[in-house]
Amino acid sequence: MGHARDIEDLIDLMARLPGLGPRSARRAVLMLLKKRGPLMAPLAQAMAHVALTAKDCTRCGNIGTTDICPICADDRRATGEICVVEDVADLWAMERTGAFKGRYHVLGGTLSALDAVGPEDLRIPRLVARVAEEGLREVILALNLTVDGQTTAHYIADVLEGSGVQVTSLAQGVPVGGELDYLDDGTIGAALRARKRF
Amino acid sequence: MGHARDIEDLIDLMARLPGLGPRSARRAVLMLLKKRGPLMAPLAQAMAHVALTAKDCTRCGNIGTTDICPICADDRRATGEICVVEDVADLWAMERTGAFKGRYHVLGGTLSALDAVGPEDLRIPRLVARVAEEGLREVILALNLTVDGQTTAHYIADVLEGSGVQVTSLAQGVPVGGELDYLDDGTIGAALRARKRF
Ligand SMILES: [Zn+2]
Ligand SMILES: [Zn+2]
Repeated sequence: MGHARDIEDLIDLMARLPGLGPRSARRAVLMLLKKRGPLMAPLAQAMAHVALTAKDCTRCGNIGTTDICPICADDRRATGEICVVEDVADLWAMERTGAFKGRYHVLGGTLSALDAVGPEDLRIPRLVARVAEEGLREVILALNLTVDGQTTAHYIADVLEGSGVQVTSLAQGVPVGGELDYLDDGTIGAALRARKRF
Repeated sequence: MGHARDIEDLIDLMARLPGLGPRSARRAVLMLLKKRGPLMAPLAQAMAHVALTAKDCTRCGNIGTTDICPICADDRRATGEICVVEDVADLWAMERTGAFKGRYHVLGGTLSALDAVGPEDLRIPRLVARVAEEGLREVILALNLTVDGQTTAHYIADVLEGSGVQVTSLAQGVPVGGELDYLDDGTIGAALRARKRF
């Protein structure tokens, strides 16, 4: 290709990012090559730093750089409400709306018979423990309206039955089959406010 | 946002890449966070390595990791033909076709009255010197068919007038206003083969 193997390797790695194919990865690397000082070096350093320091919050599963994430560490968020999401992307999407003041619980996926994902593969036992430990008032299920998402929601509602906690779910505004991370902030906020008993 | 400032910084840097906006940068970083070991760490390392070792070829302006790029270092490419391109992206595009067997000269842009880019801001003096030093037979102008690209082509043809070298340009196949890096390989190859005297 007329350029060094090292550069080719970098393009191949970049092409594995979502939203970048081989061609756009090449363009991104070319831009980085032209801005080696102002952009490429700082980006490499920021990435190396995060790769080294990032960790899952031991309480909720959010990704941060501390054992306990900023949300779990913030006492003002001890509202007695906890929002259960499939993925960190969904937590971020929810946070962007600013509509939720409580804490989160990131499952790390959904139950799936097909992929042999059981409750113990997710943070479901941890959720049950938190409900008891933290004296929660309400568990808001903000799972995607997919088959696996709703199977998981029903499973969690069953497991928490009799624990005394109120289980609700996001309601109107979330389109069927929709994924939280792709929704606009207003839609998520409306769905949160209109949540109904599960 | 519920995640660490370091992660936010990384998203901001990623969002400056072509093809990635704030949203897709966030998704890319989330994917990296989930694949910290297998993808994020190697990508950071590859990027840091290239940022440190990448340099412009002192002869042609191609980007590589050596003072003289692999193409300039390859004696089989001393065909007496040199292909003049605006940008390294165009050199890579030309190389992908495999249609050109000679060497390159990367101008690093085009002449532009608007942006006050003169011949001395590009590698034009270096091109004139190479024509004399390397005993070239033909200079193929593979500049974009934009106003600035063609102004630059005419300027180079004028400057090389009387040097004895034949100046040609890419011909049919390149659409007006088209940029080389966006063309398919077949189109570029055809344009090269049908090149005409400039
Ligand atoms: Zn947390
Ligand atoms: Zn070179």
